[in-house]
Amino acid sequence: MIAKLAILAPGLLGGSVAMAAHARGVAKRIVIWARRPETRLALQGQPWCHEILDTPEAAIAEADFVVLAAPVEKIIELAERVGPRLAPNAIMTDVGSVKAELVRRSDAATSPAAAFVGSHPMAGSQKTGWENGQTDLFERRVCFVTPLEKTPAWAVEKTVRFWSALGSEVTTVSADEHDEIVAHISHLPQAIATSLCTFLAQKNPRWRNFAGGGLRDTTRIAGSDASMWVEIFQQNRDEVLRALGNFQDELQGMRSAIANRDWPEVRARLERGKAYRDGFRP
Amino acid sequence: MIAKLAILAPGLLGGSVAMAAHARGVAKRIVIWARRPETRLALQGQPWCHEILDTPEAAIAEADFVVLAAPVEKIIELAERVGPRLAPNAIMTDVGSVKAELVRRSDAATSPAAAFVGSHPMAGSQKTGWENGQTDLFERRVCFVTPLEKTPAWAVEKTVRFWSALGSEVTTVSADEHDEIVAHISHLPQAIATSLCTFLAQKNPRWRNFAGGGLRDTTRIAGSDASMWVEIFQQNRDEVLRALGNFQDELQGMRSAIANRDWPEVRARLERGKAYRDGFRP
Repeated sequence: MIAKLAILAPGLLGGSVAMAAHARGVAKRIVIWARRPETRLALQGQPWCHEILDTPEAAIAEADFVVLAAPVEKIIELAERVGPRLAPNAIMTDVGSVKAELVRRSDAATSPAAAFVGSHPMAGSQKTGWENGQTDLFERRVCFVTPLEKTPAWAVEKTVRFWSALGSEVTTVSADEHDEIVAHISHLPQAIATSLCTFLAQKNPRWRNFAGGGLRDTTRIAGSDASMWVEIFQQNRDEVLRALGNFQDELQGMRSAIANRDWPEVRARLERGKAYRDGFRP
Repeated sequence: MIAKLAILAPGLLGGSVAMAAHARGVAKRIVIWARRPETRLALQGQPWCHEILDTPEAAIAEADFVVLAAPVEKIIELAERVGPRLAPNAIMTDVGSVKAELVRRSDAATSPAAAFVGSHPMAGSQKTGWENGQTDLFERRVCFVTPLEKTPAWAVEKTVRFWSALGSEVTTVSADEHDEIVAHISHLPQAIATSLCTFLAQKNPRWRNFAGGGLRDTTRIAGSDASMWVEIFQQNRDEVLRALGNFQDELQGMRSAIANRDWPEVRARLERGKAYRDGFRP
């Protein structure tokens, strides 16, 4: 059990970490630092928050587990600020959705007696803010843990145990592999859904009233927060561009097959796509 | 009220038309012709089917409303077979998802004393077959009715009333406009979802186990029936190619903005996409 869990800059994910950790008895004490005074005020009296601190430094003092829950571009800043002051044997992790640079810089900033271990819980919703947090947000959701080769095994193991205790299905991969994976399964679908929406909006927005479940599902994530996605595309630019370029080739292959009336090829693509999709976990 | 409703070649949609028409008291008698003897046998005793006929000609005799429910490429064949023999004042409609050629040829085949009015109920599921039909399949779903300029008003009105009585929200558009609309809101998303799946399958199929709700939703329709989609792409080839080409330009615009680190442009696209998506009916 964690004696003191510190959560810095809680939004939807950080709030849910606190709620889930409290509900599942993962930590004895949960302390929070939030940047805005009004957030600190609003957090007073939440049952899953034992203490609210005015500075990140105060929040991490003597904490054995620290979660940086800020937007992805602010995480490195926070890590560099509190990393050198972590208690001995403390673990610092995060919830950022892009890892390679973040993990290297946060690790470099961390006191040698403590450890930084990157995490990316693949949970979320179109909603933002700790007020929308949910106790069960991580249940049966994938959480990547992305150690460096030099990250001590005890710290990786403790981080894996932390997310498992919140209900996540943990997968350990290198930070570079992580960024390649999410470029394909998360960032590429976002770029596609957004582009489908901007295309249809300029074509004839009235048509959306005729949309069946297909268009509705295919475009759902286009409703996500724009600021968050700008940051993700900035942070994972190279991998996203590579995935996008390869997807464009694939789409062009489909278009050529239709243009050439190569119906066996069109059918083969539809069948390969269906076989892949049917293989998703229920 | 329809005295005799004839449904030819029922699959998921035709079966659901029969069930819904029966449940809502839209027709006094419902008769069905199915191509396969084993289907005709299985239909015996269904409460929403009063008679099963051995030939399309027998089924449409004296029917005042006829629904051609075959796969899209078989509909024209059926229309040309039974159209000349329709009873005076009978209406023949269909459920095909591509309309321009189908409507022109079916209309040309129809007896001058009767009328052909194209329909496209935007309902369905990944499931196929009349056994998977549902009484409420058309409820609150869009149904296009696609008359020609020369189609008599009484026939259009009766067709609109038919689908409304089954619970659909009916929209009347020309067959050409229909095909342009569905190329954008249905066929393009299918080509995209399929291509995203074939791309990820060849990249690393194991990654699908990490998929969050985003990829799951974006790819759901890739699980649809391949044969049906080959036909749709064949029938609506020109409109699909136009929509695909324009979407490719839009996606390239997003890629260029990311490649050029033009983050204000990336943000503007994300925001336009979100505004469009947020405007969907709940």
